[in-house]
Amino acid sequence: MKVLIANLGSTSFKYRLFDMDGERQLARGGVERIGAEQSSAFVEIGDSRREITIEAPNHAAAVEQCLAQLTDPSEGCLASADEVSAIGFKAVHGGRARGVRRVDSDVLAAMEEMATVAPAHNPPYTAAMRQLQEALPHIPLVAAFETGFHETIPPRLKHYAIPTEWAEEFGIKRWGFHGASHRYVAGRTAELTGNTEQRVISCHLGGSSSVCAIRNGESVATSMGMSPQSGPPQNNRAGDFDPFALPLLMERTGTTLEGALGLLASQCGLKGLSGTSGDVRDLATAADAGDERAKLALDVFTTSVRHYLGAYLVELGGVDVLAFAGGIGENGTRIRSAICSGLSELGIVLDEEKNAAATGEGAIHAAESKTQIWIVPTNEELVVARQTRDLLEQS
Amino acid sequence: MKVLIANLGSTSFKYRLFDMDGERQLARGGVERIGAEQSSAFVEIGDSRREITIEAPNHAAAVEQCLAQLTDPSEGCLASADEVSAIGFKAVHGGRARGVRRVDSDVLAAMEEMATVAPAHNPPYTAAMRQLQEALPHIPLVAAFETGFHETIPPRLKHYAIPTEWAEEFGIKRWGFHGASHRYVAGRTAELTGNTEQRVISCHLGGSSSVCAIRNGESVATSMGMSPQSGPPQNNRAGDFDPFALPLLMERTGTTLEGALGLLASQCGLKGLSGTSGDVRDLATAADAGDERAKLALDVFTTSVRHYLGAYLVELGGVDVLAFAGGIGENGTRIRSAICSGLSELGIVLDEEKNAAATGEGAIHAAESKTQIWIVPTNEELVVARQTRDLLEQS
Repeated sequence: MKVLIANLGSTSFKYRLFDMDGERQLARGGVERIGAEQSSAFVEIGDSRREITIEAPNHAAAVEQCLAQLTDPSEGCLASADEVSAIGFKAVHGGRARGVRRVDSDVLAAMEEMATVAPAHNPPYTAAMRQLQEALPHIPLVAAFETGFHETIPPRLKHYAIPTEWAEEFGIKRWGFHGASHRYVAGRTAELTGNTEQRVISCHLGGSSSVCAIRNGESVATSMGMSPQSGPPQNNRAGDFDPFALPLLMERTGTTLEGALGLLASQCGLKGLSGTSGDVRDLATAADAGDERAKLALDVFTTSVRHYLGAYLVELGGVDVLAFAGGIGENGTRIRSAICSGLSELGIVLDEEKNAAATGEGAIHAAESKTQIWIVPTNEELVVARQTRDLLEQS
Repeated sequence: MKVLIANLGSTSFKYRLFDMDGERQLARGGVERIGAEQSSAFVEIGDSRREITIEAPNHAAAVEQCLAQLTDPSEGCLASADEVSAIGFKAVHGGRARGVRRVDSDVLAAMEEMATVAPAHNPPYTAAMRQLQEALPHIPLVAAFETGFHETIPPRLKHYAIPTEWAEEFGIKRWGFHGASHRYVAGRTAELTGNTEQRVISCHLGGSSSVCAIRNGESVATSMGMSPQSGPPQNNRAGDFDPFALPLLMERTGTTLEGALGLLASQCGLKGLSGTSGDVRDLATAADAGDERAKLALDVFTTSVRHYLGAYLVELGGVDVLAFAGGIGENGTRIRSAICSGLSELGIVLDEEKNAAATGEGAIHAAESKTQIWIVPTNEELVVARQTRDLLEQS
C-alpha cells in the first residue's frame, strides 16, 4: 500500500510518499509559492532531485503537478497515480472530529468550527481538502488529527477551571497538538531503552514547540491547550498569555479583539520579543554579537520550556527519559544545554561533550544522570502514514 | 506609631489597628453590607467583641464609624483618631505606581489605568480611597502594592513572548500579586530554618491562590501574571486560560469580550467547575458524598498547584522549603496531602500524621524528606503595617 502524506502551508504543499510494505519512503517533494504566477515544484526519488517551474493556481493543481512528477515515465517511481491508496494529512484541530477520520463534509464542518481557534492552520487545510476532493475524487483523503494522541489526558488536566458545560458543549478544553511527533517519540524512546512502562518528557521544539508528559506510552499532559497558541513561545506566536491583558492591548493599539489575537498569532513569540527574527539560529548569532533582545528571546524560550519540564516532572513524580525532537530539539545544542542546566539535584545531568558532538539520534546524558536524555529525530509523516494505512485497512 | 491597615471589598471594610512599637495588634474590626440601609460594624479589642448596627452609605462613612468605635471613651483603645498615623492599604494593581506609595492623584490614576486588568479589585479601592481622602484629609493614606515583592523577578520570567514595547509602554508583563503574603512567608521561613539563603516555594492558597518561587528572600517567579486572574484556579475565577478560546466562547454564549471576561472572573474557578461552590470545604464534603464534579474541581485545583510547584522546582534547581499559607494552605489537610503526593523521588515527603495533626505554624515533613515542609500562617496586614511605617519614617 502506497500513501502520500501531505503537509500544507497557506501557499505551500510538501509531501512524502511511503510504501507501507516495509515502511519505506519512496519519494518526497513539494511546491512553493502556490497562487503566484510561477511556482517551483521539486521531487526527490532516491538520490536524484529534480526541480521545475510550474503553474499552480491552488493546492489541488499543486498536488496534481506532484503526482505528474511521481508518475513521469522516465524519472518517476509510480506507474500510475492510481497506486496512491490515500492522501493522509497531519490535520491540526478537528474539535469534535477526533482521532483519524476519512475527510467528509462532517469532518470539514468540524474543522471549520475551530477556525478561530487555529486560524493559521485550519483554514488552509479545509480549503485545500475541498479542492482535492473535487480534483481527485478517486483518492481517499484521511485526516489524522494532532489532538488524537492526547485523548488519554485525564480530566483533571483536560479541563480548564470553567463550567464543565463549556467543555462538553463548546469544546473548550485542553486538546493538545503535535500529537504525531509526541506519539513517535513515545514509541521510539520505548524502543531505545527497551522499556514500554516508563515516564517520558517529550520536548518537540521547532517553528512551533510543545512539551508532553508521557506515561506507559500515553500522553498525560501537554503544553498546548485549547489552541496551538498556548504553551512555550512559538517563532511568531505568543504562547501562554493572560486574557485579561486583552482590553488594555486593544485600547493601546487601537485594534479589535480579532486584531489583537492576530497580533498574538503573528507578531509575537521569538520574533516579537527579539524584534528581528523568530529563528533561534539567527537569535543565537545576534545574541553572541551582543543583541540584548535576541538574548532575552532565547532566555524566555528556554525558561518556558523548563517551566513545563518542571510541571511534568511533578506530574509524573520523576522522569526516566527526557527527549528532544523537532528542528530546535534535534539541532539546538545550546538550547538543550540551557534547558538541562542546574538540574543535577533533580537527577537530570547532560553530558556537555556528547551534547555538542551529537548528530542525529543518540543519548546525551552523563553517566551519573538518573534520567536518560535522548535526541530523537521525529518522523511525523511516518506516524500519519501508519494511521492512514490502519484506517484504510479497518474500513 | 499606630497604623490602621484596611482591607476593602466592594461592600465591606475590614481593618487591623497596629501599634508599631512592638508590632502589637491593638484591635480589629470592620463593616459589612456597606451601602445597604443598615450595616453591621464590629470591633475586637483584647478579648472583648462589640457589634452594632450602623448607617454606612459608603466606605468613608464605614471607616468613620470604625474610628468612632476605636475612640469610644468607655470601650475604645484610642484617645483620639489623631493617634492613627496612617491608613495602609494592601492595594492590588498599581501598574506604573510601584512599591509603597502615598495615595495621591497620580497613584489613583495609575490604579484606574489597570481597572480592566483587576476588575474585582482596583475599582472598589480607588472609589474608597477617594472618599477617604475627602472625609479624613488629615490621615495619610498609603498603598502597599501587591506587585511590589515581585519586582525582583528576572526579565526572562517577567516578559511574555510579546514585543518588548508592549511591556515597556503598555505595562503588559507578569506583575505578580499576593506580594504581602509571599513576602511574609519569605521572611518567616528564613527565621524558622535559620537560613536566609535558601530556596522556598510559597503556596498561598485561599479564596485566591498563587505560588511563588523565592531565592535568598526574593521573588524570582510567581503564578499570577499581568492580572490576578492567572495561575491556579481561584474560588470563582478561571486562572490560566487560552485567549484563543475567547471568540468561540463569545459566539456560543452570545456575549461580548467584556461579558466573556466577566464570566471568567466570576462564574469559573472552583465554583464553575463544581457547579455548586467555590469553597474547598463544601467541595470536600460533596466529593466524599460522591459528587463527581466537586471531586473534579478539587483535582483540577490540586493539579494546577502541582504544575507550578514543578515549574519552580526546576526554576530553583531544587527546593529547601515548601510553605503553605492562606486559608486553604493553613487548614486544608487533604489539599496539602494531595499536593505533596508521589514526590518522594524528588525529595519531597510529607509526614501524613503531622499533616493531619497540624494546628497553626509548624513543620509537617517526614524525617527522610530533603525538602522541609512548613505551614506558615501568613500575616499580610503586619507586612503592610511595616511597609506603611517605613514609608512614613522615610518621608
